Parts: sequence; structure tokens; C-alpha cells
Amino acid sequence: MTTKEIKAFGTNSEIEPLQKMKIERRIVTDHDVEIEILFCGICHSDLHQVKNDFGGAMYPIVPGHEIVGRVTAIGNHVTKFKVGDLAGVGCIVDTCRTCNPCKEGFEQFCEEGMTFSFNSIDKTYGGHTFGGYSECIVTDEKYVLSIPKTLDLASTAPLLCAGITVYSPLNHWKIGKGNKVGILGIGGLGHVAIKIAKAMGAYVTVFTTSQVKVDDAKRLGADDAILSSDPEQMKKYAGKLNFILDTVSAKHDVNIYLNQLTIDGSMVLVGLPPEPLSISAFSVIKGRRSFAGSNIGGIAETQEMLDFCEKHNITADIELINIQDINKAYERLEKGDVHYRFVIDLATLKN
Amino acid sequence: MTTKEIKAFGTNSEIEPLQKMKIERRIVTDHDVEIEILFCGICHSDLHQVKNDFGGAMYPIVPGHEIVGRVTAIGNHVTKFKVGDLAGVGCIVDTCRTCNPCKEGFEQFCEEGMTFSFNSIDKTYGGHTFGGYSECIVTDEKYVLSIPKTLDLASTAPLLCAGITVYSPLNHWKIGKGNKVGILGIGGLGHVAIKIAKAMGAYVTVFTTSQVKVDDAKRLGADDAILSSDPEQMKKYAGKLNFILDTVSAKHDVNIYLNQLTIDGSMVLVGLPPEPLSISAFSVIKGRRSFAGSNIGGIAETQEMLDFCEKHNITADIELINIQDINKAYERLEKGDVHYRFVIDLATLKN
Repeated sequence: MTTKEIKAFGTNSEIEPLQKMKIERRIVTDHDVEIEILFCGICHSDLHQVKNDFGGAMYPIVPGHEIVGRVTAIGNHVTKFKVGDLAGVGCIVDTCRTCNPCKEGFEQFCEEGMTFSFNSIDKTYGGHTFGGYSECIVTDEKYVLSIPKTLDLASTAPLLCAGITVYSPLNHWKIGKGNKVGILGIGGLGHVAIKIAKAMGAYVTVFTTSQVKVDDAKRLGADDAILSSDPEQMKKYAGKLNFILDTVSAKHDVNIYLNQLTIDGSMVLVGLPPEPLSISAFSVIKGRRSFAGSNIGGIAETQEMLDFCEKHNITADIELINIQDINKAYERLEKGDVHYRFVIDLATLKN
Repeated sequence: MTTKEIKAFGTNSEIEPLQKMKIERRIVTDHDVEIEILFCGICHSDLHQVKNDFGGAMYPIVPGHEIVGRVTAIGNHVTKFKVGDLAGVGCIVDTCRTCNPCKEGFEQFCEEGMTFSFNSIDKTYGGHTFGGYSECIVTDEKYVLSIPKTLDLASTAPLLCAGITVYSPLNHWKIGKGNKVGILGIGGLGHVAIKIAKAMGAYVTVFTTSQVKVDDAKRLGADDAILSSDPEQMKKYAGKLNFILDTVSAKHDVNIYLNQLTIDGSMVLVGLPPEPLSISAFSVIKGRRSFAGSNIGGIAETQEMLDFCEKHNITADIELINIQDINKAYERLEKGDVHYRFVIDLATLKN
């Protein structure tokens, strides 16, 4: 394997700010696609990894898994892409390809474990992976997505993680016309979930703890919004929602939301609260309700989501930043002060 | 409404033992069936109600909702039963009959709330209901079950609560041939669940904290049994079970069991742990697993369960007691010392 040196932004330890650095990218092998990165979304999990919140951080870390750009080179056996195509990379850059989940298109549940776009051991080429806060990425075409031409490219980047994370459960639980859906939390995930659930035909109610977000929910397309701290408002949909998507990553009382579900309704967690959630037996026994989880989505489903978003003209609401402002953006992200996803303009990496 | 005085066993307060008492039963009205009670199972929730563990106890309490016997009188408009028939009453003696759940046969989720067989306000006739530790019961035929003639009658009684409580989720989640099912806990519910899941065609593994019950699980029909306190044994089915029925009513770590599920597997709680259960986000997000609940079953489904049990010759393993020994039985039940359900021989109430 030959490599080339490229520019990136990353950190050498959990206490240092992100800064300019050089990393090595391999020259494309037979099945690889090289993508010049034009935009990369900032996911809250970038921040968690940089700070080593989940443990196991491998420094230097170059974060970023909401990657879109243009194909600049392809390997000899690449068939899905040609130079000049718009392409993207999400959370997954490799899996075993042989276990049942992989064969069924559920790469997110690969029994050998996924190779993530960054901070993950590279089982094929050694070392660890570097993400999208960089000039380019080289990925096996199997894990590369075609990016729609008609959507704003910068606003499309967050679909690669936030988009698929909310699309996959809405799709798996067959949300459509006639369903009443609750979206818990309006952040990077929740605001995209509103748009996708609406496009699927559902009646969408947002639950949020912020009056400002109650007001913004309808602009984003929600049919209704409930201030979840107000017990009076919470009565409105009690026992009436078929499905709730829970995008909250902080500790919260899920029982008050389970109580909003119809008989056989499901509440599906896609956030990652660090502490366990407390569930009362009565919350699930009453009405045969389910509390489930969902984790990103497979590659084919991610492509399906991108095509769905193109058809319905769905992208994220973003704040575009220069990469030099990344540490400021992280500070704001930590406070939840972003409407609703930061995206890095990688052209600024050349400055 | 005219009434008659009958013999019963009950208690006047949460600190008194159960004792002989007299209660009033109505004379059958147009749609009523009067059943001479021959046997009544002792459910753990009898004990909870007597001790007012859930609050709201209305004394005197005459417990019992696993009732089988023979029809001794019918109202003028009764069509399903005739005098001399075997009949039974479970947990539900009335519901609103007009809400959607009632109309769909989900009386257990009646929006107005169920009238339970005992310790429940009687909305039609006033006062509160008295259960099966008594000579006879008078119930609207809509809530009366036909009891199979070919099964041992005393051992059939526990099917009215324990049986339907485990049959309903196994049936709803479509357990059948090719499924691997875990049963968590072998008690009144769990031991019947083993038999029903096996009869449905599943491969059944039992999880228990007791080595004695590991040994007994196969006698009850389980294919395998795991001592859940042994991490080595717990590895055997990690990621391999399609469905787990959780019959445990004490505090327990559900995460170690969620981890036994396949992708899209469900764990369904039918026990009633008094404290909330802690669920880690990763336990459900990994593998898109669900934690759900289920509560007894509707009347039509209860009849379906009884017919299923007749077809597969399934009854509970019981210890038959005289009603004079009820307080001793409660003491043993509290310690989990019963194999696997106490049933009262109501003939002894005549002594």
C-alpha cells in the first residue's frame, strides 16, 4: 500500500483543541474510491470521541463521518463510481461482509463489528481510521454512497449520519399515512426526523423542553409541538401516538413518553444517554408498549434514504463554518447552541 | 338486584390473616352465569392485593381470579352456557364494551379500565367485587370462559391468569417452529410458559437463578436451562434468542437478557417488579432490540388459550390445598416455595 500526505484537522489528546495536522491516506487500491471532501457535518459523537467519553480513543483523532465530496480517483475494479461523481461516506467504512447481518444489508449490526470512519482500528490496512475533517478520504466503493445532484451539497452532508439514524427506524417501523408520530428532541437528529416523518405521510408532534423550539417546530414542518415539562400539554396525546422517535442523548424520563403511545405503540431510542434509563413495568405492560433502539442503518438503506430525501427535497438546516472555527463550534455544540447542524466547508482547509 | 349470602375466605385488613367470612352474591340477572366454584388458583397478585402493596385496597378482600367450576344457574338471556357446564372466570369480570380496545377484543386494555374479579369497584351493581376464594361467583356470560372437559380441573384453574398471561405475548409475537425462546424465571407463570412455548414449536431455554430449577426445567419440557448468575453459561445464547418472556416480579438486570436477543428480538415483561428497571441505551440500540410488556389477555384470546391447552394437554403443576391452609400457603408463596401453583379445593370451604 502506498500513501500520500494530506491536510486534516484533529487532536492529539482529549485535552487539546483541534488543530491542523498532516495524515496519510492510501492511494486507491482496486475497489477504492478517493473523494475530495467538500463538506463534512459535525455530529455530537465527534465531540464524544475527541473527549474520549466512550473510552478507547486512539489519538491522533481526525473526526467526521458526514462526508460529501467529489470522486477524484477510482481503483481498477470500481464499477459504481467514476471520477467527477458526487459521493459520500457515512459512519461505516468496512464490515466483515460474510456474517448474516452483513449479507442481509444490516452492516450496522455486523457480528465482527463495524470499522467506523474514524477512531476505529483499520483491520485491512493497519493503524486506525481518520474521518472527514480532512482533504480527502479513500474508501471501498461498497461503503460509498451516491449523493443526489439536486440537493444543496453542504446541507446534504448531515444526512449521512443524522439522516440515516432517523430514517432507518421510521422506515423499519413502517411509518406512513394515518400514523401519529412523536419526535422527542429537536437537534441534529430530531429536526431531520420531523422532515422525513412528514414526507412519509405521518402526523408529526414534537416534544421539547424548550419554548423556542416549540415555536420553531412548525417552521420545520411539524403539525404540533408540546412543551414536555408542562403536564397539561402532555395530556393532549396521551395514548394516541403510534410511534415515538427518541433522539435525546441526555438522561430523561422515558415513562412520560411511553404513556403517549397507543396500544402496541413503539418508542425507539436513537440518542445515546450515558446513564441507564429507568422504565416502570406499568409503562410497557399497559398497552403492550415497546421501548426499542436503533443504530444508524445499513449501506443500501442509507442510499435509499438519500434517494428519498432527493425525491422529497429534504436536507438538514445547517450553519456552515470554516474549519478554523471548529473549536468554537464544539463549544456551542456542547451547549446545544446550533440550528441544527454545523457543517464544515472543507475549502477552508486549503487556507 | 336480590342477593344471597355465601361462604368465603378473605381478610378485613392488610395485617389480619385470611379467615372465613360471609359475603353477598347477586342472584343471576338476565346475562349472568352463576358458577359453583370447585377450584381456585392462588396468584402472587392475590397476596399483593391482600397486603395492599399496590395501594387502593378495599376491605374486606376476598381474593382469587383463577376460578373454575360448574354452572348452577343462568340468566334468561344467557346463550353460551347451560346449567351443569364447566365454566371459569379469570381476572376480568367487566369492561366498558364500547371503546376501541373492547370492540377489538383487547378488554385488558379497556379505556375505561377493567373491573377485576376482586378488589375492584363494581360499576354496575355497586360495592366492590369479591373473588374466587368463595362458594360461587356470578358473572356476565361475556366474561365467562368454557373450561375443557378433558383436562384435570384443579390444574386447569391457573390457566385463567398464569396461562393467558404467558400465552398472550407468545401468541402476539407469533412464536412458532424455528424460534428460539427464552423464559426468564420458573414460577407460576414461567412453568406454564415453558409448556406453551414448546407446544407452539419453539426451542425453549430457561433462565433461572436456582440450580434446583435448572434441573427441573427439562422435566417441564425446556430444551435447555441456564443458571443466569453464571456469566460463562450466559454466553451460550448471547445474540441467539428471538424472544424472551420475562416473568420475574422482583428487581433484576434486564440488560444481561436483552443481550441474549438476535437482531430485532423482543423481550417481553409480564412480571410486575415494584421498582423501575434500568435499561442501558446500548442494550436496545445494538441489534434494534425491544423491551416490551404484556398484560393478561382479552376474553376471546383466553378462550383460544384454553382450547390450545386442551389440544396440547397443558395444565399447571399444582399443589392442591384445603382453604383452611391458605395462610400457610401465602407464607410459602412469599418465599417462592411452591411447585408451581397453589390451587384451593373449594370443597373444603363446606367443612
